[in-house]
Amino acid sequence: MKVEGQAYRSIWLAADGVGVEIIDQTQLPFRFVVVRLEKLEEAMAAISQMLVRGAPLIGATAAYGVCLGLRERQSAASLEAMADGLIACRPTAINLRWAVDRMLRVLLPLPEEQRLAEAYREAGRICEEDVATNEAIGKHGATLIEAIWRKKGTDTPVNILTHCNAGWLATVDWGTALAPIYKAVASGIPVHVWVDETRPRNQGASLTAWELVAAGVDHHLIVDNAGGHLMQHGRVDLCIVGTDRTTADGDVCNKIGTYLKALAAFDNKVPFYVALPGSTVDWTVHDGVAEIPIEERGEEEVLQISGSDADGSVRLVAIAPAATRAVNPAFDVTPARLVTGLITERGICEASRAGLRGLYPELSR
Amino acid sequence: MKVEGQAYRSIWLAADGVGVEIIDQTQLPFRFVVVRLEKLEEAMAAISQMLVRGAPLIGATAAYGVCLGLRERQSAASLEAMADGLIACRPTAINLRWAVDRMLRVLLPLPEEQRLAEAYREAGRICEEDVATNEAIGKHGATLIEAIWRKKGTDTPVNILTHCNAGWLATVDWGTALAPIYKAVASGIPVHVWVDETRPRNQGASLTAWELVAAGVDHHLIVDNAGGHLMQHGRVDLCIVGTDRTTADGDVCNKIGTYLKALAAFDNKVPFYVALPGSTVDWTVHDGVAEIPIEERGEEEVLQISGSDADGSVRLVAIAPAATRAVNPAFDVTPARLVTGLITERGICEASRAGLRGLYPELSR
Repeated sequence: MKVEGQAYRSIWLAADGVGVEIIDQTQLPFRFVVVRLEKLEEAMAAISQMLVRGAPLIGATAAYGVCLGLRERQSAASLEAMADGLIACRPTAINLRWAVDRMLRVLLPLPEEQRLAEAYREAGRICEEDVATNEAIGKHGATLIEAIWRKKGTDTPVNILTHCNAGWLATVDWGTALAPIYKAVASGIPVHVWVDETRPRNQGASLTAWELVAAGVDHHLIVDNAGGHLMQHGRVDLCIVGTDRTTADGDVCNKIGTYLKALAAFDNKVPFYVALPGSTVDWTVHDGVAEIPIEERGEEEVLQISGSDADGSVRLVAIAPAATRAVNPAFDVTPARLVTGLITERGICEASRAGLRGLYPELSR
Repeated sequence: MKVEGQAYRSIWLAADGVGVEIIDQTQLPFRFVVVRLEKLEEAMAAISQMLVRGAPLIGATAAYGVCLGLRERQSAASLEAMADGLIACRPTAINLRWAVDRMLRVLLPLPEEQRLAEAYREAGRICEEDVATNEAIGKHGATLIEAIWRKKGTDTPVNILTHCNAGWLATVDWGTALAPIYKAVASGIPVHVWVDETRPRNQGASLTAWELVAAGVDHHLIVDNAGGHLMQHGRVDLCIVGTDRTTADGDVCNKIGTYLKALAAFDNKVPFYVALPGSTVDWTVHDGVAEIPIEERGEEEVLQISGSDADGSVRLVAIAPAATRAVNPAFDVTPARLVTGLITERGICEASRAGLRGLYPELSR
């Protein structure tokens, strides 16, 4: 997508063909800073400190992390240690494991001296496939938006609520939940987006809003508390969110608070869709609430907020008494019964084992 | 309640018997600042700018606002104009209208020269009654907490989730939703409170957490998004919230986001109680979603957050791109079907017309 007229992806191979460049997403929306990664440890830090985030982008970064690690050590034992280290950076998003496993599967059978070059090729393929996958998600999802637009009457915008950031910044390009919006807007359908602030870390306020400003898409920021009220009053036509891990039965693990929006959508008969690449499905897991490990992140993400001061400098401010402690689960699970459908690169299906099996017969068992 | 060993209420008549003193709640939890009000306009500004907030405290402040206005003008026309001005300061909380109407009912029949002295007496009575009412709410609510504690086994704390601040700072003393917690803790029942941050304005992080620190009650701050996840995992035994207006049918209008927590509680079979004085019931309104006007406040409450810098100074920081606009509904309505019960000064009842009629036969029709 474009940033001030220049096309960007969220991750790319540097001009020297060695380093990997990313956008430091912790600096948005106030500063657009590109960071160069040269070592495995830098890629791991970028993932765990959330300079990059979003399940598909974490996967792509991990794939390039393997490349950077291979520049120093190429043995099978080293490769497996790298893989373990990368997977441990974030426990919930399944794409991380998916991308690392794919790299191992390609690289381990090769002679050591061929591994590095092939790793860069495979990481590049993961990125290209992610772009194509997300564009396909966008095309399928846009048909839902168009149908609502035609049903509403074509002179009013379609009001779409989204939670967190599942835009191009969360993937290599296009995004998952935002891809249908970008596609719909490009085809002339008027869309207005309700952007959940998405505490903690505020990825809605800082990343989704920033993306929509850059793309010229009409939107308003709302607090995470507001969506239910807007739905009660008919001000939301559709919800679309992303997912960090989807179970084989269609349960959806996504940024904390997604479950609350799904409950409100269900209560108000607002369609609630989840956009995902097939790589986000964990075919080994069925009951999301019982089985998916939920990352608990540091309490400082709750106790402090980062924002821009009047003079433009980015500051961290405390919002609670010094004696107060916090608990910070990063994800929650939305049961499939609350999900209207899944928007995938292969089409739209019911959030169920049968639905997923229909689209991914070769993967489901 | 006590602040560093000294007993405070949230509003009191100054030692000179003329001015009215309040705690500037926009400065908490970082600074404890007492503000003296001497004019009607100052009382109105304190209400609309939320130096005082919480339905019962708004009512008490408005009652004293009438006193301050009467110091300058005592005619019936002036009194009615004051009343209209005060009621317009916040459109949702019904106690504001209730307290102002009560003042008018007492004062209008009196000769002009008797109105000022009687106004101070009546405002004082409103405050004293509020304290007694909330203490009674606390006693009734504590029985619920004790029952859960005994059922759970007496060596584990009762985990109570609350949204916004319905503590002593929201009333004259004791609070509504927090009164049962203070009473339970005082009687030796172990309680742990999940404090919803409560965006925007963060009354959970800044006021409820501050109250619980001051009272020595075990608690953790969580983002507004987290409650559903905690309920899914059995980490919440009970929800108690306050209300700004309750309909005759038991619908509850409270701080934005309350509805989402009620949905999650219902979905997870967690009891969801609302604590309120009878003065919060609007007997003229039945369908809360359709009938209660929801205050839309300024977008800056969403776009900016106030917090304490490393050097202790309170700063306002922007959290979104400059081009992003926000929408800020301040309240939402939780339908009675999601409310387990209402905790009032007269006891606990079902959230329904029959339930309320049973406790307030003289008020309901």
